Amino acid sequence: MKLKLLATAVAFTFALPAQADVLFDNVEGLTIGEDGKVQRFTALVIDDDGKVAQILQAKDKKPQTDYREDGKGRVMIPGLIDAHVHVMGVGIGALTLDLSDTNSLAEALDRIRAFAAANPDRPWILGRGWNQEKWGLGRFPTAAELDSAIADRPVYLERVDGHAGWANSLALRAAGVDAATKTPAGGRIERLTDGKTPSGVFVDRATDIMQAAVPAPRPKERDLAFAEAQKVLHRFGITAVADMGTSIEDWQAFRRAGDRGALTLRIMSYAAGPDQMDLIAGSGPTPWLYDDKLRMNGVKLYLDGALGSRGAWLKRPYADDPGNTGLPLMNPAQFRNILVRAATGNFQPAIHAIGSAANEDALNAVAEIAESFPGDRRWRIEHAQIVDPVDLPKFGQNGIIASMQPVHQTSDRVMAEARLGPDRLEGAYAWNTILQLGGRLAFGSDAPVESPDPFAGLAAATTRMDAMGEPFGGWRPQDRVTREQALAGFTSDAAYAGFAEGRFGRLLPGERADFVLIDRDPMLATPSELRATKVLETWVGGRKVYDAD
Amino acid sequence: MKLKLLATAVAFTFALPAQADVLFDNVEGLTIGEDGKVQRFTALVIDDDGKVAQILQAKDKKPQTDYREDGKGRVMIPGLIDAHVHVMGVGIGALTLDLSDTNSLAEALDRIRAFAAANPDRPWILGRGWNQEKWGLGRFPTAAELDSAIADRPVYLERVDGHAGWANSLALRAAGVDAATKTPAGGRIERLTDGKTPSGVFVDRATDIMQAAVPAPRPKERDLAFAEAQKVLHRFGITAVADMGTSIEDWQAFRRAGDRGALTLRIMSYAAGPDQMDLIAGSGPTPWLYDDKLRMNGVKLYLDGALGSRGAWLKRPYADDPGNTGLPLMNPAQFRNILVRAATGNFQPAIHAIGSAANEDALNAVAEIAESFPGDRRWRIEHAQIVDPVDLPKFGQNGIIASMQPVHQTSDRVMAEARLGPDRLEGAYAWNTILQLGGRLAFGSDAPVESPDPFAGLAAATTRMDAMGEPFGGWRPQDRVTREQALAGFTSDAAYAGFAEGRFGRLLPGERADFVLIDRDPMLATPSELRATKVLETWVGGRKVYDAD
Repeated sequence: MKLKLLATAVAFTFALPAQADVLFDNVEGLTIGEDGKVQRFTALVIDDDGKVAQILQAKDKKPQTDYREDGKGRVMIPGLIDAHVHVMGVGIGALTLDLSDTNSLAEALDRIRAFAAANPDRPWILGRGWNQEKWGLGRFPTAAELDSAIADRPVYLERVDGHAGWANSLALRAAGVDAATKTPAGGRIERLTDGKTPSGVFVDRATDIMQAAVPAPRPKERDLAFAEAQKVLHRFGITAVADMGTSIEDWQAFRRAGDRGALTLRIMSYAAGPDQMDLIAGSGPTPWLYDDKLRMNGVKLYLDGALGSRGAWLKRPYADDPGNTGLPLMNPAQFRNILVRAATGNFQPAIHAIGSAANEDALNAVAEIAESFPGDRRWRIEHAQIVDPVDLPKFGQNGIIASMQPVHQTSDRVMAEARLGPDRLEGAYAWNTILQLGGRLAFGSDAPVESPDPFAGLAAATTRMDAMGEPFGGWRPQDRVTREQALAGFTSDAAYAGFAEGRFGRLLPGERADFVLIDRDPMLATPSELRATKVLETWVGGRKVYDAD
Repeated sequence: MKLKLLATAVAFTFALPAQADVLFDNVEGLTIGEDGKVQRFTALVIDDDGKVAQILQAKDKKPQTDYREDGKGRVMIPGLIDAHVHVMGVGIGALTLDLSDTNSLAEALDRIRAFAAANPDRPWILGRGWNQEKWGLGRFPTAAELDSAIADRPVYLERVDGHAGWANSLALRAAGVDAATKTPAGGRIERLTDGKTPSGVFVDRATDIMQAAVPAPRPKERDLAFAEAQKVLHRFGITAVADMGTSIEDWQAFRRAGDRGALTLRIMSYAAGPDQMDLIAGSGPTPWLYDDKLRMNGVKLYLDGALGSRGAWLKRPYADDPGNTGLPLMNPAQFRNILVRAATGNFQPAIHAIGSAANEDALNAVAEIAESFPGDRRWRIEHAQIVDPVDLPKFGQNGIIASMQPVHQTSDRVMAEARLGPDRLEGAYAWNTILQLGGRLAFGSDAPVESPDPFAGLAAATTRMDAMGEPFGGWRPQDRVTREQALAGFTSDAAYAGFAEGRFGRLLPGERADFVLIDRDPMLATPSELRATKVLETWVGGRKVYDAD
């Protein structure tokens, strides 16, 4: 074991030397099998390319290998795949000061001071999560209070809901904000008692003034953030992701990691719009790079906004805003042109569609265009949260993948009921219905919008209850999926959704040996046990990338 | 031989399979050796990584290898390295209509028609090289004449000197040009006899109007252009280059070629400015990628313009424009800040400096900054054409590399005499003086500004006479270099200038087996014979990439 750990360390330092074959013995292994059902095994042979050579049952004769690893009877499942994540967002978030658990202004100021001291190289101190209500402050904090913690570097901190921001004096100066700064429409600049001097807090659209002044991350910071994102995701047992909206800056960070042998996360990349797609990949998807670690598959498109902010495009007005149906972010011709442009290059479109009108338009557009672009296209709709029941069969009819995030359902439940009213929930987060109508699912988290924890996702997918067990019995429980379907959604089906089937996602011979050792059996655990699963070790391509000890 | 050719073809189709070792026998081989002198050999052993395993003399015993290649007594030299080239410019130029050898308007129109027919997918027909004087036209051609050849696609063609452009009616429309278009300062829009309607020809700054309308190349076109650039360069025996001014678009084209195993040219890349450097390489030079085929070494900076257009920054006014000294494109603080930014990341700056003031400032800036950034930095000055003799010793003092283009000297001679007058030529194109003062040279072509032909460069470097043998005995012949120094400038010294020594540039054990078979011995040929050298075959990493047959 010591020897193996040393070998792993060396591997990361010197980038992928040849590796001997390993018998990973004495595990309670399970994977989605060739038939889509759970298949069990007790040992795994990993070849020197880091692929699964063989899976063994208790009765099978053990082959002779260079090394033997003792699984000590722990549960082994395939590495989990998050089919919808913002990789750099996860990393940047992890490097940012988090004030969400502070209980007073004084505690927050202490935390800010300590963070600044621990990060002397950062030109700006950025953070989020403060909440003056939770602090019992009864008012917004001020720039002067923030200056008392940090006066020699600009500081800008977002409120917990993202709808307000708090700046210190240097940050105000960097943004050119003073008493003469006009309040923008749709926003508010908090002022001191003189009614003029900005107090340091900006609300809604006024936060744009500060956001424009915050410097974009430098490549070195992006490299750090990406390394951090890999760590965070591996800690949750995630070995592969679909990155939803890769910019050229993101892509370069992925490649720099790949070039120096530090890429441990498998990334199925969807470009941040067609221009980034062209710039990065040229006339077609990239090859699989770095031993199946990176590929640009296609392009992320936004057809509408989100339900919470009433930006999702609905067929009928919001129940709690009768004049408003939300609106499309592309007109039908633009949208179809971009789909054609993507399909011409064999790029896979991943269409963000949340509202019922957006989903109808996305489903119809694919149906129209699929005639001219036949073959195995795997059109993806991301989120697919609110679908008119009459449109649900269209997923199955055109092989469209519904890429959905189970935890969004449990987080959004009350808000969705308010937005839609009780009579329009039939096609909401309709996982099982889509499956039963012949559609395909892929599951993800939308991190950093939600935690990337896939066990929370598995629990939500199989229960439609939140972490508190609410509502008892599950919200619209007919749209729960089975444990097996949920596991497939986070493994084999997520791989299929990114053209990665046969490469990773299952522990079957020929696939990459990506797996997780966990402390309980997800097929046997109760929902609350499942949610509390501990990841003990995470392995990618036959190499350990995370160890809880 | 047949078998070997087949193996080569397969190699390019399926990207770099393992290769057996090869004895390349029966050659008149020569390379710059460990001691900087020409070393001769009669056979070469290439290992299965495409590196030189051994060089043999006639008396040596031949080793046992999997294959034997018969060199048939031909001359083998190291693959030539162009230390200053614009790779994508070469490729885009090669894909563009060339009218420079047309002798009449009618002939040009025929050529344009044929080119458009052969390139039905190009949205614009672009070209260059026309000369109404050579055609005996006595006037500029018109849009209507161009329409008679191509009326269904926009056409825009640059004059031979780049100072005028000729558009057809669709191109005028695309640029929004009509009778109301104002003539810009520093330019002229040719008009029909009504004095209003643009005739189709734009002069000097007026060409900007048309250039803005010409669409940027699409990634697919960039990929084609890059493939074409590789072909053109290999045809001239060039196996490696320093790319001077790599944009992210260029870099992505190089990587796409690398990713699909189609990168056959070695590229030492210098980013097009510090922002592109950051974006591409992040916090330091990239590793050598694709088996020593690609590395971002540093950044290209422009400190001044060119001598011909009087943009070069001189210490004293132009002899033929007494009020003008040219001007720096960066102020001293900006320039030094960028040098520090590059040096902090261990990036190598390659500073374009043509005039005497620019060279003085570049040499002084390096001297100032080198104190804070000691070590092997290999600061490069590109062109270094006009240097005040008092500044020449500074190259040697700080290990600065003068990256010079021998053919520029022969092309510029008459113009340089006019710009500087007879008394200020002592430090002009001072190759040998720089060497004698302890500086280092690297030679290149500046293609597509000049032809990439390195044999023209070798001839110019050793004679300072042009292709017509003018001036007899050479211009300022004291600054000629020896054949050996010239060959080193285009091989080992060009590799050193890009931190590639030991990887390629010489045919010595452990270096990449990059070589050229040519039809004469460059150490024995007369200057005019040397200039007429025929490249028979070009090999990169032990694989044939060009065959004249």
